[in-house]
Amino acid sequence: MGKNRLEAFSDGVLAIIITIMVLELKVPHGTDLSAIAPLLPVFGSYVLSFLYVGIYWNNHHHLLHSVQRVSGSILWANLHLLFWLSLLPFTTGWMGENHLASVPTALYGFVLCMAGIAYYILVRAIIALHGRDALLAQAIGRDAKGKLSVLIYLVAALLAFVSPWIANGLYLAVAVLWLVPDRRIERKMDSLAPREP
Amino acid sequence: MGKNRLEAFSDGVLAIIITIMVLELKVPHGTDLSAIAPLLPVFGSYVLSFLYVGIYWNNHHHLLHSVQRVSGSILWANLHLLFWLSLLPFTTGWMGENHLASVPTALYGFVLCMAGIAYYILVRAIIALHGRDALLAQAIGRDAKGKLSVLIYLVAALLAFVSPWIANGLYLAVAVLWLVPDRRIERKMDSLAPREP
Amino acid sequence: MGKNRLEAFSDGVLAIIITIMVLELKVPHGTDLSAIAPLLPVFGSYVLSFLYVGIYWNNHHHLLHSVQRVSGSILWANLHLLFWLSLLPFTTGWMGENHLASVPTALYGFVLCMAGIAYYILVRAIIALHGRDALLAQAIGRDAKGKLSVLIYLVAALLAFVSPWIANGLYLAVAVLWLVPDRRIERKMDSLAPREP
Amino acid sequence: MGKNRLEAFSDGVLAIIITIMVLELKVPHGTDLSAIAPLLPVFGSYVLSFLYVGIYWNNHHHLLHSVQRVSGSILWANLHLLFWLSLLPFTTGWMGENHLASVPTALYGFVLCMAGIAYYILVRAIIALHGRDALLAQAIGRDAKGKLSVLIYLVAALLAFVSPWIANGLYLAVAVLWLVPDRRIERKMDSLAPREP
Repeated sequence: MGKNRLEAFSDGVLAIIITIMVLELKVPHGTDLSAIAPLLPVFGSYVLSFLYVGIYWNNHHHLLHSVQRVSGSILWANLHLLFWLSLLPFTTGWMGENHLASVPTALYGFVLCMAGIAYYILVRAIIALHGRDALLAQAIGRDAKGKLSVLIYLVAALLAFVSPWIANGLYLAVAVLWLVPDRRIERKMDSLAPREP
Repeated sequence: MGKNRLEAFSDGVLAIIITIMVLELKVPHGTDLSAIAPLLPVFGSYVLSFLYVGIYWNNHHHLLHSVQRVSGSILWANLHLLFWLSLLPFTTGWMGENHLASVPTALYGFVLCMAGIAYYILVRAIIALHGRDALLAQAIGRDAKGKLSVLIYLVAALLAFVSPWIANGLYLAVAVLWLVPDRRIERKMDSLAPREP
Repeated sequence: MGKNRLEAFSDGVLAIIITIMVLELKVPHGTDLSAIAPLLPVFGSYVLSFLYVGIYWNNHHHLLHSVQRVSGSILWANLHLLFWLSLLPFTTGWMGENHLASVPTALYGFVLCMAGIAYYILVRAIIALHGRDALLAQAIGRDAKGKLSVLIYLVAALLAFVSPWIANGLYLAVAVLWLVPDRRIERKMDSLAPREP
Repeated sequence: MGKNRLEAFSDGVLAIIITIMVLELKVPHGTDLSAIAPLLPVFGSYVLSFLYVGIYWNNHHHLLHSVQRVSGSILWANLHLLFWLSLLPFTTGWMGENHLASVPTALYGFVLCMAGIAYYILVRAIIALHGRDALLAQAIGRDAKGKLSVLIYLVAALLAFVSPWIANGLYLAVAVLWLVPDRRIERKMDSLAPREP
């Protein structure tokens, strides 16, 4: 079975998630700058979530690029990832509208953590179908960055009860860590590709 | 006529349905866990509907995979299916916000039932175009699982007036039954494919 | 320039229009059937608009099928069509929530009328690029059905001030007229295709 | 890496942006024309933003047409552009609902300005990957129209504090300037293409 519809459906869902988050930016009634000042935390959490959905789309793009076929378990691992990402508009809105209160900030991290785990499961499902020795498995390697991210989300979610600012700083730090697309796959593929003599 | 745009349009509609359902999870005003406790039934019905849209996308994917061309009646049978699925965000929200009350739970089952019938009509329209002896017709067989599901939705919708919990249990049970993608088509096609001597 | 992105973008917009219309079906607070009774006119106008968007997608599908390349004027004629269709969720909601009052019903017809004119302009832009003698021009012929529809929308919009029921009856009648996909193109192309001796 | 998913994702996001803006046209409670009269400024700003998203889609279409491959920096430059465009529904709604007040009108221009800069960055990222001597670089030339637009948005945003009508007139003027798709690329490519003797 081909991967085209998997990509198309994922693109559609991610495009909608990234766009409907902006609906949480409710149009205010006043007409001066003070009217939109209360929206700044909502805007900030919108930017953070936009980055995350962008990162997931980017990595998804790279990951699927090296996939040749998909199975039922890959389809469901992908839907599982989309499920957790679909909760981002809710957690983004709740965190933003409450000016980064502790519980909403912790829930935001929990959803990021679950999305990270779902991505990991998707990678495993792809490797399981394509074989451990395949290019992909070699390219992904031990996936230290993925595991580290999940760990940081968890720590940040707990730290949200101490200081939501530290938690959000960590969410932002992980986003910056991922802003660079997954060059490991590209590089490995290049190094393994047969070379012209 | 090709099937590409039919797939693209269906993917788009299904991606939007699965994503706008999350808009029923209204951001609460409080900032502690008790503020989102009332959202749990809404969340539960969201998970159930997410599963169902995922299942329909998955089976639609498998079904269209074996299709070579589409006709006007297939286009409309497909739109008919999308119509009933497009009502899922409404019935999901009504059932969830009323903590699984009887009438909303019954209506939820009625819409699932109509979607099941619409899927059946789509399958028949495809078989009608491709011929009863085609691979697809053999692969689908008597479609016992599809007919059984529609029957269970009906029974569950009626049982909702006795106990909405039994009804929702049945909705979940059918979802689990379908979580496995339609391997019948894949298996039949494999078994019918010409083999290397 | 290829037509792929024109189709993809149009599919996306039409998929969103057809799906967000359901958001006008606001989840009611009550839990019995009387709670959703006031929604029946909204539901009825949703069904009507679903039919219309389905018809436009269907005809758009057939129309673009016979197109080999697109120009700037086709891109804008297409966007112009999408603009009028994008107003359908608003006019559908206004007409439905006011139980088919005169002015909303007339506005609904006006938007249908403008969409019909926009479709006509799109057809002309495509014929202009492909040449009057091309298959498409012959297949479309004088487009009596398109012109008649626009006329009926106009008459119905005026009759809405006499009786909104007559107007809605006419809208429904035109929809039924179009439910059959545009077989003219298919038939003409078949009749013009070179035949095996 | 191919450009297909970049196009598909961008089409999806732009399709959603252009469509959810219509949700700001809230269905009014009255049933006569005076009930929708207050919506006229919202409708006007909707038309303006529809034009702008259409223009961006159109130019994006032309720009990507001449691209052979994409890199990580192009992916992110594209997401950056989509980010600013995703704020259009918010600024459109704020400007429209406040009958073109000064601050909302200025913010509208600021977002247009940032989107213009983001488009410029995307063009540079594409040229950087494809080489300065490539067809694209020659075709785009010095991009006087792009730079001029950004300048006009800035001036208009400042003039919004003098008269929002002047500002909106300038926004409309730039839109008209761009309504013609970017023929420079098409023309240059034609003139550089090898000719039959």
